Amino acid sequence: MKDFIIEINSKTHIKISEKDIEKVLAGIKTTSNFWMIISLSRNPFNVAVEIIKKLNEEKYIHFEKEKVLLAKRGEEFCKKNNIFSFENLTCQSCSGRGVSINKLIVLEKEFNETVKDRPEAIIDYDQGFVSPKTSIARIALLASRGDIKGKNILILGDDDLVSIAAGLSGFPKKVTVLEVDERLVKYINEKSKKFGLPVEAIQHDLKYKLPEEMEKRYETFLTDPPETVEGLDIFIGRGIAGLKGPGCAGYFGLTYIESSLRKWNEFQKMLAEKYKVVITDIIHDFNLYENWDYLLESIRGDLPGLKTMPDGYWYRSSMYRIETLEYKDAENKDKPEEPLYVDFESLVWTKKE
Amino acid sequence: MKDFIIEINSKTHIKISEKDIEKVLAGIKTTSNFWMIISLSRNPFNVAVEIIKKLNEEKYIHFEKEKVLLAKRGEEFCKKNNIFSFENLTCQSCSGRGVSINKLIVLEKEFNETVKDRPEAIIDYDQGFVSPKTSIARIALLASRGDIKGKNILILGDDDLVSIAAGLSGFPKKVTVLEVDERLVKYINEKSKKFGLPVEAIQHDLKYKLPEEMEKRYETFLTDPPETVEGLDIFIGRGIAGLKGPGCAGYFGLTYIESSLRKWNEFQKMLAEKYKVVITDIIHDFNLYENWDYLLESIRGDLPGLKTMPDGYWYRSSMYRIETLEYKDAENKDKPEEPLYVDFESLVWTKKE
Repeated sequence: MKDFIIEINSKTHIKISEKDIEKVLAGIKTTSNFWMIISLSRNPFNVAVEIIKKLNEEKYIHFEKEKVLLAKRGEEFCKKNNIFSFENLTCQSCSGRGVSINKLIVLEKEFNETVKDRPEAIIDYDQGFVSPKTSIARIALLASRGDIKGKNILILGDDDLVSIAAGLSGFPKKVTVLEVDERLVKYINEKSKKFGLPVEAIQHDLKYKLPEEMEKRYETFLTDPPETVEGLDIFIGRGIAGLKGPGCAGYFGLTYIESSLRKWNEFQKMLAEKYKVVITDIIHDFNLYENWDYLLESIRGDLPGLKTMPDGYWYRSSMYRIETLEYKDAENKDKPEEPLYVDFESLVWTKKE
Repeated sequence: MKDFIIEINSKTHIKISEKDIEKVLAGIKTTSNFWMIISLSRNPFNVAVEIIKKLNEEKYIHFEKEKVLLAKRGEEFCKKNNIFSFENLTCQSCSGRGVSINKLIVLEKEFNETVKDRPEAIIDYDQGFVSPKTSIARIALLASRGDIKGKNILILGDDDLVSIAAGLSGFPKKVTVLEVDERLVKYINEKSKKFGLPVEAIQHDLKYKLPEEMEKRYETFLTDPPETVEGLDIFIGRGIAGLKGPGCAGYFGLTYIESSLRKWNEFQKMLAEKYKVVITDIIHDFNLYENWDYLLESIRGDLPGLKTMPDGYWYRSSMYRIETLEYKDAENKDKPEEPLYVDFESLVWTKKE
């Protein structure tokens, strides 16, 4: 497997270990669905794809149309190396999130009704929104941690329309959205006006610093950051700059699909050292994303599975909750030159090479 | 509230902010149960107790027997400062853990049957074991992450008897327990022999380094570490020293009750920097502890609630999952002098002052 690893490292520019190959094989032992294998393997997209490609070349697996199946060589390898399927023991009732949205069924209905004419996800701003149930589950999570009732909420980028769900819930005192996409700003403000919600959206590109009047004003922020190190740094930094002081909370998603565990580690260092915040929760697969129309045209197409639209929630992220420990003058500077959306671990990287 | 905060800081030696007082008040708005308020407030035990004491002195709250009730002054303060109850939206089906044990109902029954004559928790080694459902949920979590089937598992300290649950599950290749308490070593080995489990317990004090033949041998470790910084460092360090290399996993609990968020932050830095591991999951209130007989005699007794045994799962911990990123010669040294069990944030501290 040594050569195998060296080849993947060099092709993807991402360091992997034997275990990462084992995770892909464990995924293939669990399901033949190409997209779910990528999801289960907890590897960056391009790593998982390269591993699947190489496993096929080396006849460990074979394809049946877009399906991925273990070949005899793969079976033997798994047996010898004690590689088994993942057990599906995710709680069906809460989809593994730990919080239930059963008590928020009216809110869910209202939300679905309200946003049924929502704008489509577009590639310009790396958009792709979460399922409506995910948006409602976010409200449930904030409410169970005491981070929404009577609070001032800051949302940085809101193609998920969580601001509308929050407004409809009646929980927050005030919700402010900073959003770069004019379509969404207009949409959120129209809905807010129509339904009398305490929600305001402002057009703002987060490469530029948080407006001064928004610094140290909020108890809670939410964001779905771009997953380059720079993107994470900027979005989380802006969120923290908006918080009042110690004991405030931030929520955001981080994927395995566009972030290797090495990037997770770098990011966790940044949170602990640079921002002096503590991670209180990391909830696996909390955020489930609806498949977006531009997916296939924006990625590589060199395996059968890559030419077939996924039909389930394969793009998922873990939900982080952080809490601030001290008053901190978070660096709030314009950073117009940073590469927010694309690095070697991005979904769309191979296309942009 | 400034004086209030200074007084708590000086009495507890733990730095708090206004938000920590708000969390206690939010707890009191949610329930009158003394122990549950402490649990909900997510403050160290002694901080929560001092805050409750001071709130009572200042007539924000009053006691009715052991119950804690908001007084008029407290009500007004909460109203003015937008302090509300925590919403109970924890998933009832999985108790908020995200993994379901419904498919493991036979295992749960066998486990309960097998351990019904388990040794009692004793104060000597800071014991206090988790509910049987928690033990089974740990097996479910490991299985869903691919960390138990066919794997070699290392358990550092096992008053929870997770080794027996793992053995009975049929999942692991081999389970090794290091345990300081001879009663437990004997108990686990007897059960292992009787039921033909792949489980072996060895008497070992973890102040002393991992036996050399156990270094780099395991895919997964579990532990319930003592929560001083030194205790965490030693237990997690020993666990990592036992792991084979990159892509292996460690599981352990960390409470709010004996660890302030500042300690959490220190510890997260240690994980990211010193051990170069990544935190993949932090699952809130995953581990629920059975109340232990020696509780009341080991803690302070200066409030009515402190003289009444809790009747629910108030002592809880978040479950961490970490993953290793590189081959690492973890420092594996004897440390017989470190204060494993007691610091300012410990439950029993005031007694030992």
